[in-house]
Amino acid sequence: MRFDHVGIAARDAAALVDRFGRLFDAPVVHEETVDGMRVAFLELDDGSHLELLEPTEDGPVAEFLDREGPGIHHVALATEDLPAALDRARGLGIDLVDEEPRPGARGHEVAFLHPHSTGGVLVEFVDPGD
Amino acid sequence: MRFDHVGIAARDAAALVDRFGRLFDAPVVHEETVDGMRVAFLELDDGSHLELLEPTEDGPVAEFLDREGPGIHHVALATEDLPAALDRARGLGIDLVDEEPRPGARGHEVAFLHPHSTGGVLVEFVDPGD
Repeated sequence: MRFDHVGIAARDAAALVDRFGRLFDAPVVHEETVDGMRVAFLELDDGSHLELLEPTEDGPVAEFLDREGPGIHHVALATEDLPAALDRARGLGIDLVDEEPRPGARGHEVAFLHPHSTGGVLVEFVDPGD
Repeated sequence: MRFDHVGIAARDAAALVDRFGRLFDAPVVHEETVDGMRVAFLELDDGSHLELLEPTEDGPVAEFLDREGPGIHHVALATEDLPAALDRARGLGIDLVDEEPRPGARGHEVAFLHPHSTGGVLVEFVDPGD
């Protein structure tokens, strides 16, 4: 598996996109509204990304912001075989948020693991399909 | 800049190293005790890393665990010019934890930025020197 992106929850993503874009010299390469969130992807020189998440309605990221405040929300790892990765997680006794891959940001197939099984880390698996 | 690693704070890093190693098929490539922490680096297929941090004495990571519980602690970006990166941060009005580069894990020069300047995200700059 390889690193894909870190997801960062923000109440005002536009301000942070501007700040991180300048700080890391990282252009915005994708923006969309998906699953009740405005998301923006900043691209680093290695082709990996920072994903800024701003909720536009109630949901898990809005709850995260209320509970934890803004900051790092999840880490996403890329795999070409998402069902196999989920089987491996199940074999390790890890609880899944998504039992099956589902469409996520950028039209990629994604699945999340429960952070209580992974040391408090919300892990996303993503198949970038490339 | 490019992605270098995500730092993950744990009370029992050994258990999480084993779990993440199997889950991500990521070998341990480096271990040391530095700055009052046991650290272990798991290597992903793209050459980036997950850094597991277990405090062995009082300090910022122990305080993080008491305050936030285990989970993602920081995100580290690699640059070949750490002083220039810190100057850029200063120019954006970002508060620095480390005004100058200092030796960190793996013998690399590192510097941290204050999360209150970066949307609650603890950012580490690292010069891997390669």
